Amino acid sequence: MLSFESDYNKGAHNKILERLLETNLEARAGYGCDTYCDRAKAKIKEYCNCPGADIYFLAGGTQTNQIVIDSMLKGFEGVVAAVTGHVSAHEAGAVEYTGHKVLTVPQTEGKMQAEDLRTLLRTFYEDNNHDHMVFPGMVYISHPTEYGTLYTKKELEALYGICNEYNIPLFIDGARLGYGLMSRGTDVALPDIATLCDVFYIGGTKVGALFGEAVVFTRGNMPKHFTTTVKQHGALLAKGSLMGIQFETLFTDDLYFEISKNAIDRAEELKAVLREKKYQFYIDSPTNQIFVLLPDERLKELRKNVSVGFWEKTDEHHTVVRFATSWATTCEEIHELAQIL
Amino acid sequence: MLSFESDYNKGAHNKILERLLETNLEARAGYGCDTYCDRAKAKIKEYCNCPGADIYFLAGGTQTNQIVIDSMLKGFEGVVAAVTGHVSAHEAGAVEYTGHKVLTVPQTEGKMQAEDLRTLLRTFYEDNNHDHMVFPGMVYISHPTEYGTLYTKKELEALYGICNEYNIPLFIDGARLGYGLMSRGTDVALPDIATLCDVFYIGGTKVGALFGEAVVFTRGNMPKHFTTTVKQHGALLAKGSLMGIQFETLFTDDLYFEISKNAIDRAEELKAVLREKKYQFYIDSPTNQIFVLLPDERLKELRKNVSVGFWEKTDEHHTVVRFATSWATTCEEIHELAQIL
Amino acid sequence: MLSFESDYNKGAHNKILERLLETNLEARAGYGCDTYCDRAKAKIKEYCNCPGADIYFLAGGTQTNQIVIDSMLKGFEGVVAAVTGHVSAHEAGAVEYTGHKVLTVPQTEGKMQAEDLRTLLRTFYEDNNHDHMVFPGMVYISHPTEYGTLYTKKELEALYGICNEYNIPLFIDGARLGYGLMSRGTDVALPDIATLCDVFYIGGTKVGALFGEAVVFTRGNMPKHFTTTVKQHGALLAKGSLMGIQFETLFTDDLYFEISKNAIDRAEELKAVLREKKYQFYIDSPTNQIFVLLPDERLKELRKNVSVGFWEKTDEHHTVVRFATSWATTCEEIHELAQIL
Amino acid sequence: MLSFESDYNKGAHNKILERLLETNLEARAGYGCDTYCDRAKAKIKEYCNCPGADIYFLAGGTQTNQIVIDSMLKGFEGVVAAVTGHVSAHEAGAVEYTGHKVLTVPQTEGKMQAEDLRTLLRTFYEDNNHDHMVFPGMVYISHPTEYGTLYTKKELEALYGICNEYNIPLFIDGARLGYGLMSRGTDVALPDIATLCDVFYIGGTKVGALFGEAVVFTRGNMPKHFTTTVKQHGALLAKGSLMGIQFETLFTDDLYFEISKNAIDRAEELKAVLREKKYQFYIDSPTNQIFVLLPDERLKELRKNVSVGFWEKTDEHHTVVRFATSWATTCEEIHELAQIL
Repeated sequence: MLSFESDYNKGAHNKILERLLETNLEARAGYGCDTYCDRAKAKIKEYCNCPGADIYFLAGGTQTNQIVIDSMLKGFEGVVAAVTGHVSAHEAGAVEYTGHKVLTVPQTEGKMQAEDLRTLLRTFYEDNNHDHMVFPGMVYISHPTEYGTLYTKKELEALYGICNEYNIPLFIDGARLGYGLMSRGTDVALPDIATLCDVFYIGGTKVGALFGEAVVFTRGNMPKHFTTTVKQHGALLAKGSLMGIQFETLFTDDLYFEISKNAIDRAEELKAVLREKKYQFYIDSPTNQIFVLLPDERLKELRKNVSVGFWEKTDEHHTVVRFATSWATTCEEIHELAQIL
Repeated sequence: MLSFESDYNKGAHNKILERLLETNLEARAGYGCDTYCDRAKAKIKEYCNCPGADIYFLAGGTQTNQIVIDSMLKGFEGVVAAVTGHVSAHEAGAVEYTGHKVLTVPQTEGKMQAEDLRTLLRTFYEDNNHDHMVFPGMVYISHPTEYGTLYTKKELEALYGICNEYNIPLFIDGARLGYGLMSRGTDVALPDIATLCDVFYIGGTKVGALFGEAVVFTRGNMPKHFTTTVKQHGALLAKGSLMGIQFETLFTDDLYFEISKNAIDRAEELKAVLREKKYQFYIDSPTNQIFVLLPDERLKELRKNVSVGFWEKTDEHHTVVRFATSWATTCEEIHELAQIL
Repeated sequence: MLSFESDYNKGAHNKILERLLETNLEARAGYGCDTYCDRAKAKIKEYCNCPGADIYFLAGGTQTNQIVIDSMLKGFEGVVAAVTGHVSAHEAGAVEYTGHKVLTVPQTEGKMQAEDLRTLLRTFYEDNNHDHMVFPGMVYISHPTEYGTLYTKKELEALYGICNEYNIPLFIDGARLGYGLMSRGTDVALPDIATLCDVFYIGGTKVGALFGEAVVFTRGNMPKHFTTTVKQHGALLAKGSLMGIQFETLFTDDLYFEISKNAIDRAEELKAVLREKKYQFYIDSPTNQIFVLLPDERLKELRKNVSVGFWEKTDEHHTVVRFATSWATTCEEIHELAQIL
Repeated sequence: MLSFESDYNKGAHNKILERLLETNLEARAGYGCDTYCDRAKAKIKEYCNCPGADIYFLAGGTQTNQIVIDSMLKGFEGVVAAVTGHVSAHEAGAVEYTGHKVLTVPQTEGKMQAEDLRTLLRTFYEDNNHDHMVFPGMVYISHPTEYGTLYTKKELEALYGICNEYNIPLFIDGARLGYGLMSRGTDVALPDIATLCDVFYIGGTKVGALFGEAVVFTRGNMPKHFTTTVKQHGALLAKGSLMGIQFETLFTDDLYFEISKNAIDRAEELKAVLREKKYQFYIDSPTNQIFVLLPDERLKELRKNVSVGFWEKTDEHHTVVRFATSWATTCEEIHELAQIL
């Protein structure tokens, strides 16, 4: 059985497991106050070209979104996101659970348009009764988006420009950041990300780690007593060093970028096969997630040999599915899949 | 200066103030455990033709929405509302503050369409990943809506039918219920409301009381220990008897209905004037709120003599304003306004 | 049947009802943005000798405690209170509902001792692991306390001194403030209160108003967008002017102080009777609440003619009850009660 | 440098790391819906002799406490814990963050006494005003406690008897459960735990796993849609299989019990040394945590060679420290420490 269901279907890159083995019986300080975390943070700051950043490791994506948003918003504020944004649609209301509304703007291929953001903000402040409404206090985007699409540098500049104009922070969800950075044709590099937002995270769970996300507060703007806030949210890992070890490994000798590139290379190969075999793409994604529209009959057949992700039904007889490649996808798997398709 | 800004711009109906005076120095039990509340509840149950109902008095509309929704939803559930629903747009995120998402469906003249509700529910349950999404756990509508429009009995039946099919409660926000019930041409009477939902409230604040809303749990389904929940939300009024006295007065000798009818009669007179003078209606409202589109120049002029409610800007030079009549609006005020228009 | 059950068992002072009648049909801006509120605020500031204060009216005590505490604390902070503090014991967890812990210190006759506060704060900061604990972010006391006792000026200075040392605000719950200010022998006047804390409220509900509390942010330190926070908590009253009218009346010609004095005078008379008749005082309260320990048999008898408040059982056969006088208690009622006792 | 600071200062038992390596590149379903989790659950149920249990894996202790408590309490309820209970003192208010109060009872060597629990419950229900108070809706104890002490079977029966009498669930925090079960002289085995409470968890983080806690709902009473609740709290791990793999390993061939026994054996050796050298024990703990009172001078000296945990200051010149042994502590480490002590 082949699995193209997700980019979190396997364990971790071998180098990470090796490091975990090597360091396993060393005694370490708890809660992320160890030297592995320190070194990992230093390396990430260097790769981001952002020496003044504050960095914090958290275990998962929804947790990170919840805590970053809750800790940076004031009580009367909500976060602006595209309707298809992960915090808006697929986190079981984790943001609302902390008392904050997700204010939505339309999406275009999963992306937020600067114009739509501006309209929301302008309309809000023009409304005489906005004291009775949730204040937009932060903007959330994901890069790559939930549809695998990417912002251009110019688009990020436009969004960040509006945020600065209205004096609200921009938060970039980088659960799959590596795959975005290594996409062919993108003009957005890691230091650009660090320049064009107030806080973002570098996804580990979906890019070679067992688990872990590195939150980067780009302006040294980590909220005060952040560890207490993390503990209060139930998210403080006793063995925080595990994330330090993993991220130190990922940010040594470009490993994070190399394994991200693997996913992109395999995705491009797969797209070539799909194109050749006349499959219908649902969206044109330049990263590791490929969305294809299939007749349900065809899907049923396919699933005998390949697990793929359900995305949505478009009508009674058709379904959009997702093929995801990852740091772990091999050329052999692509070839095998090509035989089946 | 004439005021048509809102239906809560004056005190209370004279009979209510008289009763407050008469009873002022009687000693009464606190927190709504008094005989006035008991009698008011009995009368309301009778008017609703709903002897098995549980009734509870709360001070204001947003408070009522927040507490009813929070106390009836499970932790992982959200409430479905039209995008223009009060809980969705104009309560400063009071529902989200309690940890629950407002799930939105499109609006048509402020109303939720049965079809849109069905689509949301069906799509949710069809989605293989709905465990990662907020469960729709209640449906919220307002009657009259925020645009002054009304559901027909058939429309309510359709919505309630879907709710029953999916086994989720229907909650009707009746902040202006009196004005809906007395609207000319409506086929929905108070006992119909009590039959066609699981919980609703009869607005007092906007219909003749100083403050107060009567929540009716139509199936005897008031959540257990509701008083404690109300206290926990900071909403338990020490002198709860004040609401008992007011509602007993409103539901004696049809007062609630008579004063609601006054608002409707005055609104119809005003609409006739506006129609005659060729004003452009923004929406066709059969209740006490009248929405008119005005050039900003004209509005500026008008506001020298009349206060009206800001609704929204439609473009740079035009604004929608609201004229609201109420239980207190007099024929003289309509005549004066007619001179000015 | 005599009622000494509480100080919120009757309506409002006659002058307040008169003003409500006089102003009843004037059109007014909603949500507290009216001239009555403006004038009431100006008068209160003058009485407090605190021209830079921000003032906000809310409807009830628990609501006020909840909103003031929630809006002034950061997410990782809790509020310090005596174990018997109202927020700690008798508000159904309204503070915890907003996500904040109530950190308790011992009580002495209902009061917080400066020493106990200092110990809590010192111990917290000495603890190496305090990152895993709730930060003490505010101190809450009530004056009079839940036991009717009062702080001396020196005691308030000591508490406020510690708060300033640790840079956390002091909040005084003045639900019964009038009764404290008019207590014989107190050295604490209203301007002292305004000097010796960061925020307090002047209780109306228990001191002559139908409802309403005036929150005074003594340093002009009302949290930004406080109206939105109030709305979000479901506590924004549509007819906010009702509170303006009431507080303007209370703070005209010393009414608030005069009616508070009435409660104290009646309480002193009652205490004299009780003393004479050898009743056993549970605590020595200098304000309007009198706590007496009664054998249950005696209590049962008494309750045939007088309603009193249950306080607590001390053993199987004895109960502490509360006699409360108020702005409305008459000499006749005291005489009648004396006959019965 | 020797480390006796905690039982979470090292990675994982070697067998666990081996299994992670072996299974690393197998494709697996996400979010705990994999065969490893299934098998681990089956094995745990067998060890618990509790075939009807529901089992769920979560990543850490505070997270587990927060989610179990929040999902099992109704909105108006709080959880009863000893003042020294982890949820009460050292989780940064994670329970309050979810809106629930922690109601405290006194502790005796870290344990809750049945008598104290009964008093709290009886007093609550006797109080006429308990509608204004937080309802006790669950009882939380830890076994071993935060002081390393253990309940006897009889004590657990007494507590659970009271819970059943009042119809509220008992929750046992077993972050260090293995060390309790293998303590010499305990009469409480794993099936006893499963019989004597409604929900408990088997700690992995502190007992040989990289991370992970196995929550056991002993009566098949896992709250409906628990996965959604977990997601909403930000706690749903993408690679949930990692916990399945770890717990399957721990519950194969008694590994969990064997490695727990190692900690106990080493602790007993260490206690013998400490006793011999006349160190002053702060509390008599029968598990892997040893609390010793040291003059600060002596502590300073000691810390040059050994890291130990800070517990509390008893006065200006003395400190209680904790020596923790674990699944990973070796005889050599004990010998080395003995040289230094």
